[in-house]
Amino acid sequence: MAVRTHRTQQERSEQTREALLDATIGCLVELGYARTTVQEICLRAGVSRGAQQHHFTTKAELMTAALEHLFARLTRQLREAAVDLPPGPARVTQGIDLLWEAYSGTLSTAAVELWVAARTDPELRETLRPVDRALGHATLELYREAAGVELPEAELETLLLLSVNLVRGLALDAMIGGDAGRRGRLLEEWKATALERYTSASGA
Amino acid sequence: MAVRTHRTQQERSEQTREALLDATIGCLVELGYARTTVQEICLRAGVSRGAQQHHFTTKAELMTAALEHLFARLTRQLREAAVDLPPGPARVTQGIDLLWEAYSGTLSTAAVELWVAARTDPELRETLRPVDRALGHATLELYREAAGVELPEAELETLLLLSVNLVRGLALDAMIGGDAGRRGRLLEEWKATALERYTSASGA
Repeated sequence: MAVRTHRTQQERSEQTREALLDATIGCLVELGYARTTVQEICLRAGVSRGAQQHHFTTKAELMTAALEHLFARLTRQLREAAVDLPPGPARVTQGIDLLWEAYSGTLSTAAVELWVAARTDPELRETLRPVDRALGHATLELYREAAGVELPEAELETLLLLSVNLVRGLALDAMIGGDAGRRGRLLEEWKATALERYTSASGA
Repeated sequence: MAVRTHRTQQERSEQTREALLDATIGCLVELGYARTTVQEICLRAGVSRGAQQHHFTTKAELMTAALEHLFARLTRQLREAAVDLPPGPARVTQGIDLLWEAYSGTLSTAAVELWVAARTDPELRETLRPVDRALGHATLELYREAAGVELPEAELETLLLLSVNLVRGLALDAMIGGDAGRRGRLLEEWKATALERYTSASGA
């Protein structure tokens, strides 16, 4: 019976944590970083300030944990989707589609809010940077696995990072209301170019 | 004498406007949008609230005018630099360098602050969007001129917009403290790829 109670407390604690992180992401996407307050997050999560402070001491900690939380969910989705990727050249173009899906959604919006805020907020930058770096390495690793081993390491990394940065630029374009049809065409053009690089590098 | 006084007043008015816009950009870069207040801008510009309100009624108007101001300066710089671009393939790679210089500086930082803020601030979005769209068209026009006429229109636009979005993604990477060496290598890789597209499209 004591064990049962203990587990329930732990489950509750996890649920509280999850509710706070989901509410943080919701606030970032809807209100933006500047208007996101710990008070509003607690209100949306239905969690008292005391319970929140038990989990996260500062706003910066809460934000950083929210980014990790989002990223973990995204990684899971990408890992599952990557299983269905075909081998060979189609893997390159469908991989770029996956990247775009990943970067054009909630993760990108919430992450851009945090990144931009961190530029002028030393405390947030301090907590965010190591997590951000670790996430960057993990993404690269994930794509390396998903890409298979048909390309030389350096070429794979170049193709991936060019795709990531292009997609990041396009995500910013989407955030500011740029033309969706144009973004679609650019993505197709980039896939064709990436495919050419892939074909010549793999000697296929 | 009346004319002289009139001109001096007009000059003064221009100087006040310029001081307000420069202070706005300085605040955006140093403090970020959220902590940029009209009060702080007036303080930095050495301009009274009354004089400021004579020029700009709302914070959103001031922000939008600052973006136009930055952009006008950037366009001038780019136009001057483009005169020295060599013809042929080197124009493509040096053009990409110019784009990167443009997007990795103050314009990009201030513009990203405004774009991100506009996503969740309807009033700012309302004033910013038409200006942003006009600036986009003007940039495209500028690069069209600078690029010369050796490429089919559609291919030129594709190369330019892929470059712009990649460089925008890289600028975001720089804002969040990504590795500068890696950005440099990616830019070189992109120049090589762009050159190949150029060469095959121009039949050179």
